[in-house]
Formats: sequence, C-alpha cells, structure tokens
Amino acid sequence: MNKKLVYSGKTKDVFALENGNYELKFKDDVTGKDGVFDPGENSVGLTIAGVGAINLKMTTLFFEILQEKGIKTHFVSTNFEDTTMEVIPATTFGEGLEVICRYKAVGSFHRRYSEYVELGADLPAYVEMTFKNDAKGDPLVTKDGLEVLGVMTPQQYDAVKEMTQKITRVVADEMSARGLDLYDIKFEFGYDKDGEVILIDEIASGNMRVYKDGKYIEPLELNKLFFAAK
Amino acid sequence: MNKKLVYSGKTKDVFALENGNYELKFKDDVTGKDGVFDPGENSVGLTIAGVGAINLKMTTLFFEILQEKGIKTHFVSTNFEDTTMEVIPATTFGEGLEVICRYKAVGSFHRRYSEYVELGADLPAYVEMTFKNDAKGDPLVTKDGLEVLGVMTPQQYDAVKEMTQKITRVVADEMSARGLDLYDIKFEFGYDKDGEVILIDEIASGNMRVYKDGKYIEPLELNKLFFAAK
Repeated sequence: MNKKLVYSGKTKDVFALENGNYELKFKDDVTGKDGVFDPGENSVGLTIAGVGAINLKMTTLFFEILQEKGIKTHFVSTNFEDTTMEVIPATTFGEGLEVICRYKAVGSFHRRYSEYVELGADLPAYVEMTFKNDAKGDPLVTKDGLEVLGVMTPQQYDAVKEMTQKITRVVADEMSARGLDLYDIKFEFGYDKDGEVILIDEIASGNMRVYKDGKYIEPLELNKLFFAAK
Repeated sequence: MNKKLVYSGKTKDVFALENGNYELKFKDDVTGKDGVFDPGENSVGLTIAGVGAINLKMTTLFFEILQEKGIKTHFVSTNFEDTTMEVIPATTFGEGLEVICRYKAVGSFHRRYSEYVELGADLPAYVEMTFKNDAKGDPLVTKDGLEVLGVMTPQQYDAVKEMTQKITRVVADEMSARGLDLYDIKFEFGYDKDGEVILIDEIASGNMRVYKDGKYIEPLELNKLFFAAK
C-alpha cells in the first residue's frame, strides 16, 4: 500500500494510507531533557533502541483488551516487524488535550493542592484535563472552560470522563495482576467521522505512574517488569 | 455591644459580637506591591485614606440590592460612621476559594488559554474557582477536584455557580446603568448554620475588572465614576 508522511512527531511519524486510515510509526526517540528520559517533557531528549517496539507492544496489548470490552479506540492492527500501527482517522480535541485519571495524589495534582491533600492520598479515579503547553505549565481546563473555548461539548466531556475511568480500571487491573500499582495515567481522545469519542495515541509506560511496594518504577523499568511478569 | 477581635486581615478586621454575629471593620489598607494598588496581590501594599469607607459603601449598595432580589448574603447592617458591617456567621469553603465570573476573556483566563481564545472575546458568564495561593499562582480547581478535596459538594458547586451568575448580572446591570462594562469579577462564598450557600466578604471595585469605552478603569477611578454617575 502506498503511504505518505503527513506528520513527523516527537515519538511517532504519521503516514496517510490509501484506504483512508493512518499508519503510526513508533520511533525510538523519547521525550526528556539533558539526556534523561522524562515522559512529562515535551521535547525529544534521547534515542533508546527498542523503545518504539515495546511501546507498540504495550499499546497493542491494551487496545486489544479495550476492543474486547467494547471500548472504542482508533486501533485497527499492528505490524510488529515495521513497528507500525494502523489506526482510523480521528479529530483531536484542541491542539493537545491530555486527559488524566488519578488514583493517588502525586505529581502536579499534589503540587497544586498540597494544602488540601496529603501526598499519596487515595483519589476516586479523579479525572482532569490539561492543555499541553510547556510555557504555560500545561494549564488545567474545566468542563465549562472546554465548552466556552469551543474545544469539547459537555456531552463529549461526560463521555471522555466515563471512558477514561473505564480504561484506567483496565490498565490498573493489568498492573495489579503483575504486582504493580497504577497511581495515575494520561490519555488522548478524539472523535471519529460519526462524532463518537474514541481513545487515540497510545497506552505506554511513559504515560503513567506505576509503583511497586510504594516505590516509583521508571518507564523503562516498568516495560521490563510488565513483560517479564506474565 | 461588647466585641472581641478574632481576626486581623489584610483589608478588614473581624470582631465577634455578643449576639453571635460578626463585625467587619473595613480598613484603608489595600493589597498591592511596591506601593502600587493591585487587587490581584495577596500582600498589603499601601494605605489610601477613605478606601475602607468607599468599599463599604459599594458593598452595602450591592448587598442591599441582592437582599431585595432574594439572593442570600451574610449582610445584616452597615454602620457608616464606624466603617463597619455586621454579618451572620458563615463557614468558608477551604482556606480562600475565589469564585470568578467572566464576560470577557482577559487576565489569567486569556493567559492560560491564549491559543484558543482572542483577548477580549465574549464569554457567557463563565464561572471558575481558584484557591488563593500566590506561590502556586492561584491554582484553578474543577468541580470534581473540589469534591475529591472535600472542599465543596457537587450540589454546593451548582448552587455557587448559579448564584455567581445571578450576582454578576446584578453588578453588570448597575455598571451598565453608569456607562461602564463589567469584564470579570470575583467573589467569596460560604455556608450558613443550615448549610445554605451564601455570598460573603465584599463586592468592591478591587474585586472586578470594569472598562469604559474599551479602556480599563482602575479600582480607585472606578469608585469615583460609580458614585459620581448617579
């Protein structure tokens, strides 16, 4: 099948396919700063051989579980030899909206609200959304804010929130089966040609904070533990 | 009536009265930095003779209008000679929650979301809440966030939002009658002994952004224009 590069991202290249779908090429580039891998960074820091393949492997595993459970994603199929995934077209909400689900008060949530919550306190699958923007510190945006900015309707917000909580439960259960605890995770959503909300992008170790026996597990270590355990 | 100082704030002192109510003493201290009046600052910058009296005058005017319209506030009565206001007891939401209502995209809203909204664009009485905290940049908090932090129930959130939009309309109409345009305004809410949400604190020129013919009017100038016009 002929394909055309339409976007070269930090960790993925995107090709348009003749059948109307897109192909995501998972690269070995990871985000970070000063040569240190940091999923929170928005610039590419270094290249780690095999990272693209393992991110594709984890994403495929989760997208297939979600498909079985009837939760819609952009996933069509994976070609492990080429490190690519075929996905259906989707329109994103704004220019980089991250949807975060939190079981524990760590990271930016705790920094923002430390007068009101203890570090590591339980949260009931709390969902919040932020715009990706380093200079603005990834600003939080409310349901009402997304509506007045024309980014997401209240109905879409409710759908995204509900899907996020379901998907987070799926990921947490897979982690739990391997003796790992999911603290928080971020996703990207879009909507398909019928306007239906779908999960897009990836579900990889760099998108989540996972702990083992109360100790944070780095993404590269998480890849090893996750695939060694089962 | 005997009274006891229970709290000395930046712009007001609070006295407990024998009847169970409180007395707010409006002071001439205003918030600001380096000797410049800035209502957004959280530290006292300077003292301006007569500011306490005029803030009390505007607050009383608005609280009386709200009382007539059946919108509950903590207001009981004003003593203009002493520059004091008697108020009923109220419990605040958290430690300094500001409720903001916006008709125009200016200030921190525009700074946060400038990729999605033009400076000065119309907003439909958009309501958002932030915790007062200079060091953290007055962090925004969502309806879900307020619930998981134990600060406000979803029902209280809806009540505060609806009251905020009504009160903002009242203030905007009074400004409009004087040839002035309200762009945004901030309030504080609490709840009374029955758990009912009520407006507390004040409604003064330092709590709002007002424009005239597209030009921003400083709070001290706004005081003059507001009371000169009628």
